[in-house]
Amino acid sequence: MLEVSQRGHAMPLSPYRRLTPFADAAKQRGIRVHHLNIGQPDIETPPTMLAAVQQANIRVLEYSPTAGYLSYRRKLVEYYQRVGIQVDTEDIIVTSGGSEAIFFALMSCLNPGDELIVPEPFYGAYTAFAVATDVRIVPVTSHMADGFALPPIEEFERRITPRTKALLLCTPNNPTGYVYSRQELEQLKDLCVRHDLYLLSDEAYREFCYDQEYVSALHLTGADDHIVLLDTISKRYSACGARIGAFVTKNKALQQAAFKFAQMRISPPGLAQVMAEAASELPDTYFDHTKAEYLARRDVLVSRLRAMPGVECPVPGGAFYVMAHLPVDDCDTFCQWLLESFSYENETVMLSPASGFYATPNLGRQQVRMAYVLNCDDLNRAMTCLEQALLVYPGREIAVPEAALDLGR
Amino acid sequence: MLEVSQRGHAMPLSPYRRLTPFADAAKQRGIRVHHLNIGQPDIETPPTMLAAVQQANIRVLEYSPTAGYLSYRRKLVEYYQRVGIQVDTEDIIVTSGGSEAIFFALMSCLNPGDELIVPEPFYGAYTAFAVATDVRIVPVTSHMADGFALPPIEEFERRITPRTKALLLCTPNNPTGYVYSRQELEQLKDLCVRHDLYLLSDEAYREFCYDQEYVSALHLTGADDHIVLLDTISKRYSACGARIGAFVTKNKALQQAAFKFAQMRISPPGLAQVMAEAASELPDTYFDHTKAEYLARRDVLVSRLRAMPGVECPVPGGAFYVMAHLPVDDCDTFCQWLLESFSYENETVMLSPASGFYATPNLGRQQVRMAYVLNCDDLNRAMTCLEQALLVYPGREIAVPEAALDLGR
Repeated sequence: MLEVSQRGHAMPLSPYRRLTPFADAAKQRGIRVHHLNIGQPDIETPPTMLAAVQQANIRVLEYSPTAGYLSYRRKLVEYYQRVGIQVDTEDIIVTSGGSEAIFFALMSCLNPGDELIVPEPFYGAYTAFAVATDVRIVPVTSHMADGFALPPIEEFERRITPRTKALLLCTPNNPTGYVYSRQELEQLKDLCVRHDLYLLSDEAYREFCYDQEYVSALHLTGADDHIVLLDTISKRYSACGARIGAFVTKNKALQQAAFKFAQMRISPPGLAQVMAEAASELPDTYFDHTKAEYLARRDVLVSRLRAMPGVECPVPGGAFYVMAHLPVDDCDTFCQWLLESFSYENETVMLSPASGFYATPNLGRQQVRMAYVLNCDDLNRAMTCLEQALLVYPGREIAVPEAALDLGR
Repeated sequence: MLEVSQRGHAMPLSPYRRLTPFADAAKQRGIRVHHLNIGQPDIETPPTMLAAVQQANIRVLEYSPTAGYLSYRRKLVEYYQRVGIQVDTEDIIVTSGGSEAIFFALMSCLNPGDELIVPEPFYGAYTAFAVATDVRIVPVTSHMADGFALPPIEEFERRITPRTKALLLCTPNNPTGYVYSRQELEQLKDLCVRHDLYLLSDEAYREFCYDQEYVSALHLTGADDHIVLLDTISKRYSACGARIGAFVTKNKALQQAAFKFAQMRISPPGLAQVMAEAASELPDTYFDHTKAEYLARRDVLVSRLRAMPGVECPVPGGAFYVMAHLPVDDCDTFCQWLLESFSYENETVMLSPASGFYATPNLGRQQVRMAYVLNCDDLNRAMTCLEQALLVYPGREIAVPEAALDLGR
């Protein structure tokens, strides 16, 4: 019998994908669904960047070089310099989104069956990349109680085995919004140097640090050969659909290996590189605006959440996500219920159940991730929906006043 | 010690990559290099398609759906209908180039260690994808003597083992230009049905059939679940840099598996999909022009090659490649020598040694692939270079009559 491969079966379906049919059905019923479930910002893509594609004089849209246009990589070198990262054009392979940079890193650093240590909760697609590349993710749990700070370094150390080849970090973090401090990164770096591990640093949300200094893995010294930066313009310039990222390392052997994986797919998208290159023309103040906007949204979201009985959430220092504890039996069920059985003033909200962000079974069942990618008005409406939903959801864990009366408590 | 993964080491470097530094050095010396080594056409990308991107009114360049924009997939359905292929939008996953379609197919159909039967010579990147996905390529050699026709079906059958999961075909073929006949495809289909194998059909060069009917694997009946079409707009519309391809199958289980691999990278390039969608606005005569141009080039190339003593080549029925036998000791050495030590009227030519297209060791050492992606004038100049080179190359295999030395002067 014809069969799909085992790895085809083993690949996880994206957690929010399971909920999509329920969201579609709600919309069919005329309900407005506020999407806080995905990191797709509503911020305008800089018109300067789109205009660059419009003005490009292209006769033949040829393959770009495998590592990306040299002109774009030169602009990237300048960009990195502005954020305190010293790299050369040959340290950069332009990728098809940050996704491909993750793929190149896992393929180049780990063999099938090797182990990759990742603080959890983590970006759900890491699981998919691990399955696709036959890498085993070994999670180290971080906790909401301390804002998802780096767990004690001993927790990492004791998980290192002869199969451990790399550590994967995301800072500012998706899904927690936590921004790792220099001290935390130094600890991780020392660990990697001590145990001959790669430090893969996913810095997709670099520009969005609200309360503290941003520290890149490539700001650290003395470990150049260990560090791979996984980057993307998706969030930086609200250009998720462009599919332009970067694999950045000073490790020459890794550069060569990753280059061969890059060569397999010939080149990254061409038009999108033209667009990405034009980011260099943006004014210095560009990020001030977007950052201020996200900060305002974060504050709305956190203050609304904290005003809800039984809801807890840390103040995330970066990215545009909040992880919240909800007083419900199970967030997978609750998120589905929000779409299937609830509406308030003909609106509801779509959230990401956090279970998909944990590798350890049963963790995160009372947590959701919310992306503050909507304007403050819509965020407020979404929060009103959530607030109302928590009053009536059958699986709620804390009694609301009326219910308390009814139950004689 | 920090080490690159074994698969990172095992990945092959593209065959022409090895020659690139020699081509660069030749250009540094002021020599004009005619590039017949890569399938990058000089044909103009349809301005209509580029204009569509310029006119698109994009405020936020969002992730497209994982399977690609529905509007684009609808246009693709119409396109396939015009070439006699009946599929629905849900049978199509838009990919980042044909490359990603190959990747999805190998990941979804085969497990690590499984075997993939491929007629050789074959597109060099298949080897890279096989290494990356831990699939073993089992070659069946086709021969220049019969124009690289399908080897006897028994040759395929006797290579089938319990680990064989799929057959990979490219028609019209890169690198041979051979166009498989309906009868040949029927034989392969029957074999796949008999042995529960997938038939992966790379049809990147569909539009370029010069002497005979084009037959797609999806024109065959009774084997829908077995067939996966690997497609791309790269050659069709001279849009290699767009990175838009398609994974097409009616097998629902495969669709689901491939979708999960697609979800891992979130979405295919967005701007390029807008461009690709506009291909539907091209006049019906569009391919007549490009086809006529390629045909003229083919005829120039073949007639020039056949006029050279000791050079043999079949007339390729499709794509834009010619495989030629050259009377030299070793084409890897010869191709390097062309760039390093030869010029004629300050020009030389870059060819692809065929060794990179064979999986069987030592095959193809006297063969090269030439892509007729230059205009007829340049092709003629390139052929004059080759002709002259064959007269003086130290490792030439046939004695050159004194009179021949005047040829072409």
